Amino acid sequence: MSTHPASTTSTPVTVIGLGMMGTALAHAFLSQGHPTTVWNRSPGKTEPLTAQGATGADTVGRAVSAGPLVVVCLSNAEAVHQVLEPEAENLKGRVLVNLTSSTPEEARTTAAWAQRHGIDYLDGAIMAIPPLVGQPQALIFYGGSSGAYSAHEQTLRALGGATTYLGEDTGLPSIYDSALLGILWSTVAGNIHALALVGTEGVTAEAFLPYATAWLNHVAVPYLPRLAQEVDRKEYATEISTLNVNREAIAHLVSASRSQGVSPELLLPVQALIERRVARGHGSDSLSSLIEELRNPSA
Amino acid sequence: MSTHPASTTSTPVTVIGLGMMGTALAHAFLSQGHPTTVWNRSPGKTEPLTAQGATGADTVGRAVSAGPLVVVCLSNAEAVHQVLEPEAENLKGRVLVNLTSSTPEEARTTAAWAQRHGIDYLDGAIMAIPPLVGQPQALIFYGGSSGAYSAHEQTLRALGGATTYLGEDTGLPSIYDSALLGILWSTVAGNIHALALVGTEGVTAEAFLPYATAWLNHVAVPYLPRLAQEVDRKEYATEISTLNVNREAIAHLVSASRSQGVSPELLLPVQALIERRVARGHGSDSLSSLIEELRNPSA
Ligand SMILES: NC(=O)c1ccc[n+]([C@@H]2O[C@H](COP(=O)([O-])OP(=O)(O)OC[C@H]3O[C@@H](n4cnc5c(N)ncnc54)[C@H](OP(=O)(O)O)[C@@H]3O)[C@@H](O)[C@H]2O)c1
Ligand SMILES: NC(=O)c1ccc[n+]([C@@H]2O[C@H](COP(=O)([O-])OP(=O)(O)OC[C@H]3O[C@@H](n4cnc5c(N)ncnc54)[C@H](OP(=O)(O)O)[C@@H]3O)[C@@H](O)[C@H]2O)c1
Repeated sequence: MSTHPASTTSTPVTVIGLGMMGTALAHAFLSQGHPTTVWNRSPGKTEPLTAQGATGADTVGRAVSAGPLVVVCLSNAEAVHQVLEPEAENLKGRVLVNLTSSTPEEARTTAAWAQRHGIDYLDGAIMAIPPLVGQPQALIFYGGSSGAYSAHEQTLRALGGATTYLGEDTGLPSIYDSALLGILWSTVAGNIHALALVGTEGVTAEAFLPYATAWLNHVAVPYLPRLAQEVDRKEYATEISTLNVNREAIAHLVSASRSQGVSPELLLPVQALIERRVARGHGSDSLSSLIEELRNPSA
Repeated sequence: MSTHPASTTSTPVTVIGLGMMGTALAHAFLSQGHPTTVWNRSPGKTEPLTAQGATGADTVGRAVSAGPLVVVCLSNAEAVHQVLEPEAENLKGRVLVNLTSSTPEEARTTAAWAQRHGIDYLDGAIMAIPPLVGQPQALIFYGGSSGAYSAHEQTLRALGGATTYLGEDTGLPSIYDSALLGILWSTVAGNIHALALVGTEGVTAEAFLPYATAWLNHVAVPYLPRLAQEVDRKEYATEISTLNVNREAIAHLVSASRSQGVSPELLLPVQALIERRVARGHGSDSLSSLIEELRNPSA
């Protein structure tokens, strides 16, 4: 079925951890024709994959020994250390790709451990839910050994078409991960607040959906290039939508929310930040300038 | 130049208030061929418009008397009352369109005042910055007299192609306004936090822009229909991205932000809301279920 060259599809892959995500990763490798060895702490999760041609390993050691590329995806960094530390010698000379979500510090700690043991290390962050793994739009960030990445880029692309190497720094994938998730949570928060607000007047979420979608597509997203430019140049003067104007408008939002019986809590820190920036004499600046307050939290 | 029928372009229009927005409104009417009478408290702002064919009125009374359709756009509701209350008799039988931002209560108060004086009233909310007024994508919400709206819809369309009538309730435009602005502020907040975070590792806003844009287009916006469906059905069970999973991930974000020296303040209320919802036993629900906490702020 695969259109990949045999040299790539024949790369054997080991997947350690068969939770929701690890199972999706193993599936994606299998469906691209990679000989795939799997291991999981609780044994029950191996069967659906062995039924599709995966090899089940009964110890972590046997799983690691199966090939040059070991992918690990567990609940957290602590679990990764518990499972892999006893296998340090065995991992030596292989490539370890850690797709467990972590903080930058955790990623760098694991990278340092790998380096001490001669393990070629990549840290990754999966920006997709399990059903999207393996799809062209699935985004996965990698950071760490450039040699390991170029040797296995083609194989790793089985996990997502939008595979992206961010450089040698193993802390970057998790920073990008948190940054993008923050954008998602904020956007969802704004939408949830909006739905609660219009809902008080009997407007359904379905009725409001076209407005929210058009607004994001035609107003919010097109604002991002300007935001980026202002932030990079640190030039925030504007004639269009000043913090003074936004300050008045967000006060309307908070007061309208309260009088409609909707908690304004998700928007209060934006209001507080606007107030703080205006109080420091930046009322004629644009919303972009709020970044200066985040960068100097103790200032 | 106009392709509109003469019967519409000949409708005379009065614009009261020539701030940034009022000036843009008057320009848009003029460019569609409407005889336009303008008034502003400070006289200097009339000239650029009279140079383009507008008629400058030296009193509010003369401005109101000029035609059947009076559009007002001032700083706030208080200014509208100061300017228009003395003209109540004069406004009788005319259509008053109030495009001043307000709270739903303010809009309903003005509507009640208008009704007492036999003034046909529409409240509106302009979801565009002045340079976009008159463009096809410019969104303006109206609520109030359906007779007034259908009589002047074509004329009002000069102000924005995405003119939308929400029904007789004059409070709705400002609710939609606040709801959409909340989405914008939240989305901008998420992006500003993201830029501050990646910025600590030397990543420029320009370098991060393609990721933020793709993420919003391919992940956040496509999530909205599902969010809407879950909210309308109040069915929040999920197997994909539970609050338990999000709780762990947002803790990473907050801790990574702090250790990178970036204030997590904009994301803290989302974290608190997730914690609260999980503590109430909804850890297996999706993010959509957070709306239940906003709707019962005192519960
Ligand atoms: N699911 C998503 O939507 C998603 C999206 C992006 C990233 N991720 C990340 O992917 C990683 C895995 O998530 P998941 O959704 O697959 O979680 P999950 O379904 O809860 O699976 C957790 C896995 O970790 C294993 N594990 C936990 N502690 C262990 C330990 N001490 N020793 C050995 N194995 C241990 C579990 O083994 P048992 O089966 O024996 O319990 C299981 O295989 C997480 O870091 C998550 O943040 C998930
Ligand atoms: N600008 C935007 O991006 C934007 C977007 C959407 C909605 N809006 C809304 O549009 C409305 C006007 O905004 P704007 O940007 O045009 O504001 P602006 O440039 O500050 O203009 C304010 C206008 O209100 C007049 N005014 C204020 N108090 C008055 C009073 N007591 N009596 C008479 N006139 C008074 C001012 O007259 P003077 O010239 O004499 O001071 C001026 O014409 C606001 O409700 C705003 O929220 C603006």
